[in-house]
Amino acid sequence: MAKIAILGFGTVGSGVADVLTHNKDILTKKLGENIEIKYILDLRDFPGHYCEKLVTHDFNDILSDPEVSIVAEMMGGSHPAYDFSKACLEAGKSVVTSNKEVVAKFGAELLEIAKANKVSYLFEASVGGGIPIIRPMCNDLSSNNICSVSGILNGTTNFILTKMDKEGAEFSDVLREAQKLGYAEANPTADVEGIDAARKIVILAALAYGKLASPDNIHTEGITKISKTAVDVAKKLGYSVKLIGHTKTVNGKMLCMVSPRLIPASNPLSGIDGVFNGILVSGDMVGQVMFYGPGAGKLPTASAVCADIVDIAAHGGDKIKLPTFTPASSDDLANFDTYECKRLFIVKNCRDMSCFGKTDKVVYENGYACFITDEMSEAKCNALLGDTSLGIVETIRLL
Amino acid sequence: MAKIAILGFGTVGSGVADVLTHNKDILTKKLGENIEIKYILDLRDFPGHYCEKLVTHDFNDILSDPEVSIVAEMMGGSHPAYDFSKACLEAGKSVVTSNKEVVAKFGAELLEIAKANKVSYLFEASVGGGIPIIRPMCNDLSSNNICSVSGILNGTTNFILTKMDKEGAEFSDVLREAQKLGYAEANPTADVEGIDAARKIVILAALAYGKLASPDNIHTEGITKISKTAVDVAKKLGYSVKLIGHTKTVNGKMLCMVSPRLIPASNPLSGIDGVFNGILVSGDMVGQVMFYGPGAGKLPTASAVCADIVDIAAHGGDKIKLPTFTPASSDDLANFDTYECKRLFIVKNCRDMSCFGKTDKVVYENGYACFITDEMSEAKCNALLGDTSLGIVETIRLL
Repeated sequence: MAKIAILGFGTVGSGVADVLTHNKDILTKKLGENIEIKYILDLRDFPGHYCEKLVTHDFNDILSDPEVSIVAEMMGGSHPAYDFSKACLEAGKSVVTSNKEVVAKFGAELLEIAKANKVSYLFEASVGGGIPIIRPMCNDLSSNNICSVSGILNGTTNFILTKMDKEGAEFSDVLREAQKLGYAEANPTADVEGIDAARKIVILAALAYGKLASPDNIHTEGITKISKTAVDVAKKLGYSVKLIGHTKTVNGKMLCMVSPRLIPASNPLSGIDGVFNGILVSGDMVGQVMFYGPGAGKLPTASAVCADIVDIAAHGGDKIKLPTFTPASSDDLANFDTYECKRLFIVKNCRDMSCFGKTDKVVYENGYACFITDEMSEAKCNALLGDTSLGIVETIRLL
Repeated sequence: MAKIAILGFGTVGSGVADVLTHNKDILTKKLGENIEIKYILDLRDFPGHYCEKLVTHDFNDILSDPEVSIVAEMMGGSHPAYDFSKACLEAGKSVVTSNKEVVAKFGAELLEIAKANKVSYLFEASVGGGIPIIRPMCNDLSSNNICSVSGILNGTTNFILTKMDKEGAEFSDVLREAQKLGYAEANPTADVEGIDAARKIVILAALAYGKLASPDNIHTEGITKISKTAVDVAKKLGYSVKLIGHTKTVNGKMLCMVSPRLIPASNPLSGIDGVFNGILVSGDMVGQVMFYGPGAGKLPTASAVCADIVDIAAHGGDKIKLPTFTPASSDDLANFDTYECKRLFIVKNCRDMSCFGKTDKVVYENGYACFITDEMSEAKCNALLGDTSLGIVETIRLL
């Protein structure tokens, strides 16, 4: 019988207990053995909860118990989540996590510690909530060179952008509604500024290219500056606006970024609305595959965590082939100034559009000229934005 | 170094050689060892091909060579594909396959033989071509009770239905065009009559519920009788028409079927057009997840086959937890007469619509009355179809 400990009994941690308890029969049937929760670590007690007797406040109870072979780190935040994970791996216990912050910052080190101690460090739930994405990228797409990954990786911002699109609403109004509905937190910065998506795209980029960039070192742009006009114009031109985490290689170096994008209707990401996530992976052999589903939520995320637990219980923590993440040096990362893509520009009182190069789909909206350019480098775009005489009000990249 | 043999050097077999050769570097880097093709079994020779020296016409060369640990069965058809697969497994070689016919008919037996001989039998490429679906269902969704699986599992029929929808064309005209473009075979029966999709849905149903039904024993309906009128009406009412393989449990018994369906725009399968496939899996913990991508084609399918080869090379054929398929008895299968769903009816000269129960979205098109009913059993629908006075021209289930 596999005995596990859950670190942190918040939304996801208690969800893991619920999944293991509620679907005990199916798990026992598949594994031929039980998965037993032996400890739950939390600062709080949970009187009346069916797990109340498993609660400990002392991490050493878990660390020193040789019966515990799998630890589910569901604490959130960097510390002590990282420290506890490291200690467990060094003590020969496999660790599974939904903590994208820890994986994005410390994944390279923790994977190596896991390998050195012949245990596993798995993190299916760290990206895309319940959506199978980490394991498919490691295993199902293993014979592909990954050309690019583009993902709607944050449900809160997708909910807001969908509402802006469908209802013609302003960002600030929709944010307030999302907060009321519980889809956005009281302090929504990590979501709306793209920080959450940045953590996730660096993890996916590391799976694709082996290099783990610091989320702080990649271009990260949120959705707070997107106007109702831009969403309306995009819609008129046949695009939806989504916050996209994107990675690909440029001249052999890794590009990794988060920004709003116009998505053409022909791209399967364009129809992914509301709190759902979608991740489009392009491989040189397989072409494009997409993974879609609930990117957050108690039980969906717990479903992914439990998949990792079951994987280790079924195959053994020492048997699973773990990926290798090397910390990305600045030399591994593409110069963002050279990144090129098409763009939507919204301009006021523009006398001469020739500086934008070839333009397409020109429309006039509320006194603004709106048009799509050809591929343009970030450097070129910044030069244009610096020229106030051009009257550029807003620009959004195309995917 | 893992040494493999490829049985059958047609489209997929040669694609496997191409993927392993073209992406040798990335595979060697991930595995820490090479994958070497030692034999290719085919009746033909391939003069000038880079693999020509590997060709043998004698299966016993492969079977008797202890160096060959993995055999990729890419022959198609039941025999000798099944017989060769069985012999290889019994000789202690792992087998990977893209052959849905063999998996659907003999998967239960071959999985047991693999387990008895401590080797693997993997078939990621048998459903959905390059789309990761078998491994995610086995591993990523392992802690879920599967509520249902609904899939666009055949690219040929989806290409035809998409053309009918977008261009208002007739089935027979689009079929001819698909044949010209190479998207449909000269003899398209297996595709357009739903036989190919039936083989795939019984495999997915076995992954979901552990019981492998014979494709011959499930309700299988193709797209040959779908009229341009039905597609047009569906579009007007906000639905697209797709050929759907569907499985769920009804009163604890497994229902498994293939038929055309009206898909509402809110369902992520509705936007999957052309030769692409999509599989929507609903789990009691995760909710709905969807897998999308190229459902056929040389390199996408080979990508999935190679994922299985790499999995075995990385983890060992004896280490991978294989699913258990029990052949489904007639008692395991739900009585199809009791299956209930909403329906579109197209009716001519109908004087009294009361026998259809509550109807919705009534429109009149080309002299026909078209409407959606509430949930209706197959038995009830058959009774209605038997009453010629009702003037029912066509009916299609909703998903």
